Amino acid sequence: MTTSQTTRRTVLAAGAGAGLALGLATPASATPASAAPATAALSTAVPDQRGDGPRIGIALYDGFSLLDPTGPAELLSRVPGATVTMIAERRGPVRTDTQQAAVVADRSFAEVHRLDVLLVPGAGNRGTIAAMRNPVLLDWIRRIDRTTTWTTAVCTGTLVLGAAGLLREKATTYWASADYLEQTFGVRYEAERYVQVGKVITAAGVSAGIDMALYLASLLTDERTARGIQLAVEYAPEPPYDSGDAATASPELKQLALDLLARSQR
Amino acid sequence: MTTSQTTRRTVLAAGAGAGLALGLATPASATPASAAPATAALSTAVPDQRGDGPRIGIALYDGFSLLDPTGPAELLSRVPGATVTMIAERRGPVRTDTQQAAVVADRSFAEVHRLDVLLVPGAGNRGTIAAMRNPVLLDWIRRIDRTTTWTTAVCTGTLVLGAAGLLREKATTYWASADYLEQTFGVRYEAERYVQVGKVITAAGVSAGIDMALYLASLLTDERTARGIQLAVEYAPEPPYDSGDAATASPELKQLALDLLARSQR
Repeated sequence: MTTSQTTRRTVLAAGAGAGLALGLATPASATPASAAPATAALSTAVPDQRGDGPRIGIALYDGFSLLDPTGPAELLSRVPGATVTMIAERRGPVRTDTQQAAVVADRSFAEVHRLDVLLVPGAGNRGTIAAMRNPVLLDWIRRIDRTTTWTTAVCTGTLVLGAAGLLREKATTYWASADYLEQTFGVRYEAERYVQVGKVITAAGVSAGIDMALYLASLLTDERTARGIQLAVEYAPEPPYDSGDAATASPELKQLALDLLARSQR
Repeated sequence: MTTSQTTRRTVLAAGAGAGLALGLATPASATPASAAPATAALSTAVPDQRGDGPRIGIALYDGFSLLDPTGPAELLSRVPGATVTMIAERRGPVRTDTQQAAVVADRSFAEVHRLDVLLVPGAGNRGTIAAMRNPVLLDWIRRIDRTTTWTTAVCTGTLVLGAAGLLREKATTYWASADYLEQTFGVRYEAERYVQVGKVITAAGVSAGIDMALYLASLLTDERTARGIQLAVEYAPEPPYDSGDAATASPELKQLALDLLARSQR
């Protein structure tokens, strides 16, 4: 058994010379496994604001793509004092585009009146179109935008910002939505990982939200802290393939990508 | 209003010449926004298996790190016919290390007896130690491992696999857990994004799960499909900084990263 070993130390250490005392080991060694707070998982008693740092709200809606909010939430939750809150039309689980996963909204739109940072994730075709036609979501986004320091979107979340009337000049979005963005909202698509126009920052598809979140972390803190967050999530990406960039993808690969998305969604 | 425009087309297209007919536009244009299935978000009627592809299960436990399961789930859910299921000791929301987010477990361990792929995410110090001491979790992991084609872990999830007795020879894990891994389980730490030993594949910290998932997608399908998935999630990472690699980080930055993690966790 490893139990006796694991109770005596932290599993995280900065290096051989840094010792193992991070102040995190104590609660674990003081708490028997049987007393672990499993019921905390079901608690709805999440405070409105936890630290004295930025209040960051992520708008969930039916059919969102799982990584769009969770990648940025992972990084932004490491900003000192930050409160990251999942928010939706109603409290409770919100299902992804595949319907196979759900993230809990801990607050409803009606409960949130101010945010320092708003992030709108993208979704599949169905979820994006429904979001662009949802006046409750769009009205809330417009209202919150008047209170934010940064209003941000990932993937087709950019189109939702567009439907809320918040895009100017240029933006980025999911590669397959570039034409739609330009034709519908009259803003220039830029094939960058993220694009900033004033206080509006948009990210390209899905995984690009992580790059944007790291940049956003630097805006909320400083470069050194952002670099610390990057190391905290070991973000030194090394994808085994080089096919993530639509600018260099063949038409066949683009069609395959969209077919895979369509097949995975219900 | 953009409503009349968005009802007539899909927001996703493979290119100027590819047309806009992906078969996804029809449900959106046929369904008024008021009839959108918002209540589906609360449904627990998630089927055990949706397609004829691999059954992929992700073990959630209290205090997991949000990106560890959600990054891989995003990519693996695009594998044709795949069923990706979040599983925990009990059905319902499972809270992350920061307590600020929760992902829903749609199945309990007792309900799942076979998987093609098992993925064990990592957690903060408290969550990892509790998981390594949780006999229900460890017994289930050992039992499921006997049925899998691939048994995988992300970040300190590797230590949970170790506690279950499933590590051999070498593995990777979160950079700050490398010494712990070697000293506790007698396996060699390799500073790679992912390491494969037989059917066990371990990933480095947090974001490395995405790289591993892309590789895993190629094992479950083929390279072309994996490349299609990479494009589907626009995974062409461009972090604004280069501080994600512990091998080149200063001791001060390592300590900052761990301090940021510790401060964000409760």
